[in-house]
Amino acid sequence: MTDSDDAYDEPLFYRVIQYAAAADRDVVTMVSGNPDWDPPTALRTGLESYADGDPQDFQYPPSEGLGDLREAIAARRDVDEDRVVVTNGAAEANYLAMAEAMERDAGAEFLLTDPVYPYYPGKATMLGGAVTRVPVHEDGRVDVAGMRDAASAETAMIVLNTPNNPTGTVYSRDAVAELADVAAANDALLLVDEVYDHFDFTGRFESALTLDRDDVVVTSSFSKSMAITGFRVGYGVFPDSLVDDARARHMLVNVTGSRPAQAAVANALRETPPAYYESVRDTLRERIDAFTDALDAAGADYTTPEGAFYVLARFEGFPGTMSNVQQLIDEAGVAGMPGEAFGDAYDDWIRFSLCTDRAKAAADRLATYFDRR
Amino acid sequence: MTDSDDAYDEPLFYRVIQYAAAADRDVVTMVSGNPDWDPPTALRTGLESYADGDPQDFQYPPSEGLGDLREAIAARRDVDEDRVVVTNGAAEANYLAMAEAMERDAGAEFLLTDPVYPYYPGKATMLGGAVTRVPVHEDGRVDVAGMRDAASAETAMIVLNTPNNPTGTVYSRDAVAELADVAAANDALLLVDEVYDHFDFTGRFESALTLDRDDVVVTSSFSKSMAITGFRVGYGVFPDSLVDDARARHMLVNVTGSRPAQAAVANALRETPPAYYESVRDTLRERIDAFTDALDAAGADYTTPEGAFYVLARFEGFPGTMSNVQQLIDEAGVAGMPGEAFGDAYDDWIRFSLCTDRAKAAADRLATYFDRR
Repeated sequence: MTDSDDAYDEPLFYRVIQYAAAADRDVVTMVSGNPDWDPPTALRTGLESYADGDPQDFQYPPSEGLGDLREAIAARRDVDEDRVVVTNGAAEANYLAMAEAMERDAGAEFLLTDPVYPYYPGKATMLGGAVTRVPVHEDGRVDVAGMRDAASAETAMIVLNTPNNPTGTVYSRDAVAELADVAAANDALLLVDEVYDHFDFTGRFESALTLDRDDVVVTSSFSKSMAITGFRVGYGVFPDSLVDDARARHMLVNVTGSRPAQAAVANALRETPPAYYESVRDTLRERIDAFTDALDAAGADYTTPEGAFYVLARFEGFPGTMSNVQQLIDEAGVAGMPGEAFGDAYDDWIRFSLCTDRAKAAADRLATYFDRR
Repeated sequence: MTDSDDAYDEPLFYRVIQYAAAADRDVVTMVSGNPDWDPPTALRTGLESYADGDPQDFQYPPSEGLGDLREAIAARRDVDEDRVVVTNGAAEANYLAMAEAMERDAGAEFLLTDPVYPYYPGKATMLGGAVTRVPVHEDGRVDVAGMRDAASAETAMIVLNTPNNPTGTVYSRDAVAELADVAAANDALLLVDEVYDHFDFTGRFESALTLDRDDVVVTSSFSKSMAITGFRVGYGVFPDSLVDDARARHMLVNVTGSRPAQAAVANALRETPPAYYESVRDTLRERIDAFTDALDAAGADYTTPEGAFYVLARFEGFPGTMSNVQQLIDEAGVAGMPGEAFGDAYDDWIRFSLCTDRAKAAADRLATYFDRR
């Protein structure tokens, strides 16, 4: 289960996207998690009024983030503002947390799920850590007992992502609490990346912040919830014992995140009604239904996401390899992500992102293709 | 000369700024290098039109930076575009370069000048490296022979900053070339941070990129040249042999820099006439003259910057300690940076930033204060 030779290469995402872009036909691209829907109106107006502002407002914000943004995050997450570090996307927050796990000198192994978002093993390897992957249950739930068996004094951190990319599973609060105990029993930390927290279709997602533990780091961002992956505004909520080191590292790596983006997000947080988020969820629900209905017609296995915006599909005799994904691009006109990019457990599967209004057309193309095959 | 116990604490800047802000009197703040002048008009218009754009333009740009921005940087610096990584300010570019120096397993010591911008030793320590500081010559020139003597197989990287903060010295191309040779002779890299390249008052600044060497990394940013320290748009120009690793680390730490800021800078690069930069330099020249004339009247020693926008001043019997800086805030109404923040070599001095239109008033206050003392 250990793959310490996991290269920290550029993720496969870019290779698939480039292949699809170069294809000599129309392709429905369901590769990246780049929202295709509109950001909140107040995001745009916030950026516009910032552009018009005083020169002083173009200078360094506080390293840990603009005051009103940090305050709004703390209020929404119901945590002490001092624990919040605004970062260059959740990516940087995860990097800070994983670096702190290594700096504690209490193990150098990261326990990850299989399948897993490829940036986590990438970061672990970059930091000089080892990676152990524990396959999830058949239905996508995290295998708590398997994690417990795999954890040891070598474990520096357990890393979870819920709602999960790529499985779409929303982990139960109990499972996350048990894994916090597993981490604690092995003098390790727990990192929970909740970047899809606004995309919970079950109504039962609960943040790991509700555990109120001093060995759990929670990260998130506005990349998905506000449809602004390019803005790079995320944050980490660190326990008191870790937040000073996280802030110091943040300052030494980036000084601070980009201020126009932070100002725009702060404005959007103030002025965006819940209806914006509901409407995006409704759109995604419709897309998921249309896509999975057509997959039914194609006779494929698939996951119905409880959260996030990805569907995993499995076509008989057609595993989720890069070459099969390329074949689907060329011959069916649909681009997905090879399941093998996420580990071994789902290497029979292909992940389709719902960030397109042509999801139904894509599924119809897949049905036609596999029907003829 | 080695200070491996150099904490990677929050720099002193913030403490001084907070002290000045809390003072019970008017204070001319000459602490930070935050420009107080206007950004280019095209920076604002670029940001405004971006705010109005397609939702797709709000998503991830290429990890290494927006295509037109990278192209413009490569053209201006006359380097192959593949060597350019757009980063979250020069800070991230310096971090990437210093991390790569450690990853080569060819020494773990960073050779720095004394005085030195405090973020360099901070980053070195965070990366697990040791720091050796070589005092500059009395006139601010880098001590090439001293660096040569200090360099060894342990040396991972020599780090330079020219035009220099805090001394204001513009290093000669010959000196930088010799230090590149010193680095090469010790299987080390040379990093040259040229973030003040637009603030050369001598006309003889030459970029280290003109050396065209495969062991030199050059970093810069638009923070100072466009008066946008809060935007966080910088870049590194890496040798072919290092650029892939730098890109991988950039992707794993930050994914990419913030796109609104990159788009605004790209527009400003296209549309800003040379007159903008000339006019800022003229303003700074006037401020430097007014400030140093008044220091003359105060009988103080001072540096006349060849570049960047800082003046170091020395008042007899009044060394550049934190407590003396606090005394000047309280009793003279002028805030500077203690020279001791930059090392031992200039700990008798206080650094004053010219990022205020009240530089002359500040110097008059200093003259009055030291006259009465």
